[in-house]
Amino acid sequence: MTFSDPPTRTEQLLPALAWLRRYRPSDLRGDLVAGLTVAVMLIPQGMAYALLAGLPPVVGLYASTLPLIVYALFGSSRQLAVGPVAIVSLLTLTGVSAVAEAGTAGFILYAALLALMVGAAQLLLGVLRGGFITNFLSHAVVSGFTSAAAVVIALSQLKDLLGIRLENTHSVPLLLWEAATRLGETNPASLTLGAVSIALLLLGRRFAPRLPVPLGVVVLATLATYALGLEDYGLRIVGEVPSGLPQLTLPPFDGAALVNLLPAALTIAFVGFMESFAVAKSIAARERYPLDANAELRALGLANLVAGLFSAYPVTGGFSRTAVNYQAGARTGLASLLTALLVLLTLLFFTPLFYYLPNAALAAIVVVAVVGLVDLKEPRHLFRVRPIDGWTLLVTFAATLLIGIEQGILIGVAFSLLVYVWRSAYPHTAVVGYLESEGVFRNVKRFPQVRLFPGTIIIREDAALYFANMGFLEAFVDRTLREHPDAKRLLFDFSGVNDVDAVALDTLRELMATLEEIGIEVHLAGMKGPVRDLVARAAWPERFRARAAHLSLEHALRAFGETLSPAPDAPTGARAALERR
Amino acid sequence: MTFSDPPTRTEQLLPALAWLRRYRPSDLRGDLVAGLTVAVMLIPQGMAYALLAGLPPVVGLYASTLPLIVYALFGSSRQLAVGPVAIVSLLTLTGVSAVAEAGTAGFILYAALLALMVGAAQLLLGVLRGGFITNFLSHAVVSGFTSAAAVVIALSQLKDLLGIRLENTHSVPLLLWEAATRLGETNPASLTLGAVSIALLLLGRRFAPRLPVPLGVVVLATLATYALGLEDYGLRIVGEVPSGLPQLTLPPFDGAALVNLLPAALTIAFVGFMESFAVAKSIAARERYPLDANAELRALGLANLVAGLFSAYPVTGGFSRTAVNYQAGARTGLASLLTALLVLLTLLFFTPLFYYLPNAALAAIVVVAVVGLVDLKEPRHLFRVRPIDGWTLLVTFAATLLIGIEQGILIGVAFSLLVYVWRSAYPHTAVVGYLESEGVFRNVKRFPQVRLFPGTIIIREDAALYFANMGFLEAFVDRTLREHPDAKRLLFDFSGVNDVDAVALDTLRELMATLEEIGIEVHLAGMKGPVRDLVARAAWPERFRARAAHLSLEHALRAFGETLSPAPDAPTGARAALERR
Repeated sequence: MTFSDPPTRTEQLLPALAWLRRYRPSDLRGDLVAGLTVAVMLIPQGMAYALLAGLPPVVGLYASTLPLIVYALFGSSRQLAVGPVAIVSLLTLTGVSAVAEAGTAGFILYAALLALMVGAAQLLLGVLRGGFITNFLSHAVVSGFTSAAAVVIALSQLKDLLGIRLENTHSVPLLLWEAATRLGETNPASLTLGAVSIALLLLGRRFAPRLPVPLGVVVLATLATYALGLEDYGLRIVGEVPSGLPQLTLPPFDGAALVNLLPAALTIAFVGFMESFAVAKSIAARERYPLDANAELRALGLANLVAGLFSAYPVTGGFSRTAVNYQAGARTGLASLLTALLVLLTLLFFTPLFYYLPNAALAAIVVVAVVGLVDLKEPRHLFRVRPIDGWTLLVTFAATLLIGIEQGILIGVAFSLLVYVWRSAYPHTAVVGYLESEGVFRNVKRFPQVRLFPGTIIIREDAALYFANMGFLEAFVDRTLREHPDAKRLLFDFSGVNDVDAVALDTLRELMATLEEIGIEVHLAGMKGPVRDLVARAAWPERFRARAAHLSLEHALRAFGETLSPAPDAPTGARAALERR
Repeated sequence: MTFSDPPTRTEQLLPALAWLRRYRPSDLRGDLVAGLTVAVMLIPQGMAYALLAGLPPVVGLYASTLPLIVYALFGSSRQLAVGPVAIVSLLTLTGVSAVAEAGTAGFILYAALLALMVGAAQLLLGVLRGGFITNFLSHAVVSGFTSAAAVVIALSQLKDLLGIRLENTHSVPLLLWEAATRLGETNPASLTLGAVSIALLLLGRRFAPRLPVPLGVVVLATLATYALGLEDYGLRIVGEVPSGLPQLTLPPFDGAALVNLLPAALTIAFVGFMESFAVAKSIAARERYPLDANAELRALGLANLVAGLFSAYPVTGGFSRTAVNYQAGARTGLASLLTALLVLLTLLFFTPLFYYLPNAALAAIVVVAVVGLVDLKEPRHLFRVRPIDGWTLLVTFAATLLIGIEQGILIGVAFSLLVYVWRSAYPHTAVVGYLESEGVFRNVKRFPQVRLFPGTIIIREDAALYFANMGFLEAFVDRTLREHPDAKRLLFDFSGVNDVDAVALDTLRELMATLEEIGIEVHLAGMKGPVRDLVARAAWPERFRARAAHLSLEHALRAFGETLSPAPDAPTGARAALERR
């Protein structure tokens, strides 16, 4: 196996140096083709996602310029395609709606402020090396959230596809109800153009995945609108798109807005990073170059800071565009630099071409892009393997859909952690006996033929012990002793106890003391080193400590005077390490 | 070992039948002495705790009658002394203060409503067999909470000990500040009587622990107040205590009050049960009779329902009175029945005697009772054994003291669970080698002499794998592979992996697939039965499944063509099961 050399110190700060220094002429062709391909995809998507976020289309183009350049210079992924993405656009819409009305000038300014906050949060988290926090977002939660968000996004496009007004954009049930009552107001031109666009996009994706079908749809829809004068039939069009480069603008820093935008900023910082890092990681693994979560956070943070300063809105690495970039042959960040350059040229010279572009075509692009995000395989898979993980996905999905987009992911995280804590409170615990044919100890319920030792009950505990599962263990001991009124000794196999907390340790000592009073000795065998260190510090009475020092069940039983004769034909060494159930 | 017989079905419903049927004449003396002793202790304490709760002293006496009888009939502990206790009284004060002002008639009614709610919550939890929920209250949290509550309670008595007015009873810093500024208004009679009472109580506890010193203090203080006319010097006295039995009164059910009392009701239901069950459990263990958490919840629930219906306030099993009851010789619930009878007689005939009883003497009783609840040994112990558990205690203590009594315990529970989740995200993981002298695999960092196998890296994972620690594992693998660029195989020892969730399973499969692409085979050895069941359901590719099926590290290594020769002098069987660090 060969990984590339580890980066130098300078290259860690400015990863672009790593690929610039080693740039090979053979990389150039792939970078050029990929840069062009992504630009052709990004220009319509950028405008469409900006509309989804409640912003003028040009903001989506701004977000497709400088942030890409910053990421290409500072990011450690060489194929990640940064820019506006669907879910972050939706989160921007719901977040900024808390402080301004969509479509107003204030909304645009606060969207830029939101990007600044996202950037600051990501940069700070990266500098503090806090990237591990994203480990607490279970894939089940991300999957449920993404599917629900895709549904919300698709529904939010109904207004442009049907050419009707919809006020309730935040509550799915209300939105559906409103759409149903206003179905009669549907604009035929919008519906036709939207439906044709969706059909073309789906056909293109199916039969010509390498062609720039979205651009084709944009061109055709614009020409049709212009030629047939569809504007006069009530079709909403993009209208004037200001030309020129994005300008440096400081967003308004007002305290109340900062507080109200904070939940959205943190959600976007996390969710955006998760989406981006997942796709960057899978490509880095294939291409065998290292990817550091904290470096990625810092690079995305800088990209978002620049987005905020230059009149754009939050960005992140997108799933589908990154895949296209990689498949089109991108070798280095040069591809993204080229993409940004092409968008800048578009902003300078081609914006008048978008005047007759109908919103319905952009809505069609959004709908087709997000339909693929609804993942039905994952819940089926999770329910089959471990139903509780499927429920985590479903709870997140339902909460995101019915309660809200930001609350949904929080509820999902809380639920997934509670599931873990809950399960840990009911650990697998078994009474075991000696399986003489194999020379190992096994669960008496699964292996009724095991040898038992008169007066001694052996209990195997398969869990880290902590305050929440000691009640379970005590109840298990209580029940077991009731079933074996002749027991004189309780022998615990601690080889599966990976950790113990101080409270559990005290409970254990109390258990030893209480049972001693009624004539039962408790012994502990096979304790791991770190656990033994804790017992030493807990200052147990000398006799308890001696009873906890058995190296293994075999050692303990020999000390009790039992003889263990392993089967003569079992292979030495391998025998006793047979897996335990 | 001998446990008593398991209870019959009828006895499970009415546990009093169990001890009534088997009542031995030899039990009678102990029950009589204990019942009398506890009554003598309970009468002053009941009045004192009622004052602490912001209620007239007679309410504390009411709470010491019917609830005791109900618990004696339905409870499964034979020595538990139910009644008003300090911490529940404090929680009642803060809880009911949210809906009424202390000292008003409304306050008394809402305190009874609170008792009804506590009773309903406990009964419901017991019927639904939800007693396990209390497992999630770590002892570290309970200890920190109890110590802080004791401090708050002691400070709340300052007003009666100094004879001043204090308005801020809920915030400790504000209360201290107010007391400091009003120190000049101290009433000399209150201060003197309070100080002498405290001194007598402390001396009595030290030198005459078997004498009813609190009753003595009450008698002496009452006589002194009457004889010296201390009332005229500004000493606050209990005044008229209505005589007669507690009356059946339905508390006011108004919706807003129910909502506002709910947090307090749930907190009291949990905390009260915890305190009660802890002491009942320790005595039941010594006396070798079974105690069921759900039965206890139901019995305490009934006791609180009766408290709510008969003009009392929330009760639970108290720590110190139960200890006194047990040490005085209580054998059955008859002791508690006698206690209740004596309090009823007091209510009928002796209430006029309390007219000149000074509040300062009752405050002294409260202070001396709760001083013992401040536990300094536990934090020292926890910090020595496992510092993070000490922090759990400290965080709970500080939050209870500074933020609030109900918030404190919630913050403690959340913190303790986060600590557990946090640690589980960073499990112990080690590269291991074969220790030939012992025939076992050990950590290469602890045992540098272990034998390594060219091209094969063995990693032992000591944790249940789930979404939050897979990032850690992946990073560990990444680092390890970088340190061993010649690796061809990665062999995981799964014998310490007690559980795996579906997300971790997918990540594992992706890891296997990604590493395979770069020429590294991943093998898993020693998987436990339940984990293997999950892998089977996850539908891994056939070759991955084969690589995950090694029974043990030894089996896997032999399959790779290695020969493992254990040291000839190691004892067979015992050797391979030596404890692992």
